Amino acid sequence: MERIYLDNNATTLADPKVKAAMEPYLCDRYGNPNSLHSFGTEVHPDLRTAMNRLYRGLNADDEDDILVTSCATESNNTVLKGVFFDLLRGGEKDHIITTSVEHPCVANTCRFLAGQGVKLTVLPVDKDACVSADAVREALTDRTALVSVMWANNETGVLFPVAEIARLCRERGVLFHTDAVQAIGKVPVDLRAVPVDFLSLSAHKFHGPKGVGALFVRRGLKLSPLLHGGEQMGGRRAGTLNVAGIVGMGLAMELAVDHLAFEDTEVRRLRDRLEDALLRIGDVLVVGRRELRVPNTVFISVRGVEGEALLWDLNKAGIAASTGSACASESLEANPVLKAIGAGPELAHTGIRLSLSRFTTEAEIDFTTKTFTEAVARLRAISASY
Amino acid sequence: MERIYLDNNATTLADPKVKAAMEPYLCDRYGNPNSLHSFGTEVHPDLRTAMNRLYRGLNADDEDDILVTSCATESNNTVLKGVFFDLLRGGEKDHIITTSVEHPCVANTCRFLAGQGVKLTVLPVDKDACVSADAVREALTDRTALVSVMWANNETGVLFPVAEIARLCRERGVLFHTDAVQAIGKVPVDLRAVPVDFLSLSAHKFHGPKGVGALFVRRGLKLSPLLHGGEQMGGRRAGTLNVAGIVGMGLAMELAVDHLAFEDTEVRRLRDRLEDALLRIGDVLVVGRRELRVPNTVFISVRGVEGEALLWDLNKAGIAASTGSACASESLEANPVLKAIGAGPELAHTGIRLSLSRFTTEAEIDFTTKTFTEAVARLRAISASY
Repeated sequence: MERIYLDNNATTLADPKVKAAMEPYLCDRYGNPNSLHSFGTEVHPDLRTAMNRLYRGLNADDEDDILVTSCATESNNTVLKGVFFDLLRGGEKDHIITTSVEHPCVANTCRFLAGQGVKLTVLPVDKDACVSADAVREALTDRTALVSVMWANNETGVLFPVAEIARLCRERGVLFHTDAVQAIGKVPVDLRAVPVDFLSLSAHKFHGPKGVGALFVRRGLKLSPLLHGGEQMGGRRAGTLNVAGIVGMGLAMELAVDHLAFEDTEVRRLRDRLEDALLRIGDVLVVGRRELRVPNTVFISVRGVEGEALLWDLNKAGIAASTGSACASESLEANPVLKAIGAGPELAHTGIRLSLSRFTTEAEIDFTTKTFTEAVARLRAISASY
Repeated sequence: MERIYLDNNATTLADPKVKAAMEPYLCDRYGNPNSLHSFGTEVHPDLRTAMNRLYRGLNADDEDDILVTSCATESNNTVLKGVFFDLLRGGEKDHIITTSVEHPCVANTCRFLAGQGVKLTVLPVDKDACVSADAVREALTDRTALVSVMWANNETGVLFPVAEIARLCRERGVLFHTDAVQAIGKVPVDLRAVPVDFLSLSAHKFHGPKGVGALFVRRGLKLSPLLHGGEQMGGRRAGTLNVAGIVGMGLAMELAVDHLAFEDTEVRRLRDRLEDALLRIGDVLVVGRRELRVPNTVFISVRGVEGEALLWDLNKAGIAASTGSACASESLEANPVLKAIGAGPELAHTGIRLSLSRFTTEAEIDFTTKTFTEAVARLRAISASY
């Protein structure tokens, strides 16, 4: 059997259609879209098509802004530091609310801003690895400038109540940002229904290319640029446009949205099949209620088995999984989600994340189930703690 | 005749070898390099090769840092805002020195920081469109945190005395940054010989892909990240690595350095051939002494002819040129370089930039000469000011 890729929350295979669409922009249609001559202007229709696909994919309004960035890390830094310069430095507000399970690019940026004098509330997650709108409500003060809560968690797949939190923030006149990197292509993201002010995404998480992402900015909102410079993106994000990346991201968005029903049925069926089989191993803990998760993710803790040891057994069999965020994969710290849901220290290093995609097959899932089950038996047999 | 691309200072054709090298990383070798499994680790040798090519291309030391960014705009913002948070906000220093002809991504970032209380000295250029080290020396104070002077100007191709300025700053204990976007692949950039502290570059200016650039940081220097987040680039620039882009940029750098001799002989010969022919038109002004310019650029002002009108005549004949920076191409303001060298208002809108590459042919140059000369005759015949 070929290798099996079950780490789609870390990054994804680019859809072959996306690769084909990007192909002309390196050696043929290579002009700078800001140039006035034909090499520059001939790519304008392609860029418009790509941007329209992004707007449609998010159900954004024409008057909203979608800024192309280099990745969600940049988008998230743009929001947090933009709000720092716009609201927090001036002193009228001084408070940001976020959660204990945000991606490092939100968590570490918040920490950096705390070092600049910003007051930070980091909401813990409950036993379902979630944060409630009530918890946000209680943390809000008159000095709160921004609430930043992810749409879906990268490690557990747990969906946060962003619609409720967004409405709450809107009522209270507080800006709301969501890192939707793990939601796009997995669940509907409808920005006319959910009143978020800022939303971040990365193309490579939904079968687009690496190195390109976007930031949605609700119409009329001010936000100091993270990248000052030329007039690209209406002066809101400077830098020569990555034409191939934008075209690829646009098509990837369209394909992702077109596959939402497939994600919700077929990908979900395979994930459930895998999860049910792994639960039969016994003495395991799946984090987050299934109905509250995106359809592609299962995060499972196997008592008595180090996550990394299991990862290696899977890898030897050609199966790619993860112990959590790739961005923190070299960290020796206990998994923050397991810590956050109150799992005891004996479970702290036992988490494994398996994340599927629309390219995952049933044969792959069945082979993974068999390999995983055998690996757990082997590792428990030699475990000092089991 | 096919179209002729003479706007290589705006962006370049990706070398077909670069495109071929990037090809496997979208659908085959698509792992996240920060993942521990084989999809992640299999790309490590390719990333090392690419990074080694960047180090060799700049003659950087192993202990220096080269951070991959999304473009020089990001690199420049990283330096200026990093120094803002590291030195300027604390208050021990409060002064930045730059020039009046920097790219908008330096100029506008400096302007933004001036709005945050930073004191800014903007050095004018002399009649050769250059800034002397003496001018920098006179502007330095005990409160100067950073000097930022480009290596070569994007519009005129004029080379700035960065070696001298770098040594001066080193002696005075002031950080020195250079935007080398227009130098890479045109002149040798040897960072053991030139003691710059920070250097920015963009791959798409030397036949690499758009959407990827780099920032050189001299060993031991602190610099707050612009993109906080994961541990990529040693925690200095977060975001999932753009593997295809890094591989492409590395090869583009190697090819650019390999072609430096060709640039200095053949590209220079064609540029000189073009420039000599255009000078024969009469009543024209080429900005910057030829021996002080990169080999590929000529910026020419044609009395009595609007730059944009000439651009359109060239474009109709299939020739891509520019009136200046693509990033400011929709601006109606007089060209800042022509203003800066003291050209009268009658010349303010008359500048045209032609920038060659190693893919430019003699037949293209001769056709351009003919077309340009005829267009000037036509436009002068209908000119109100000639």
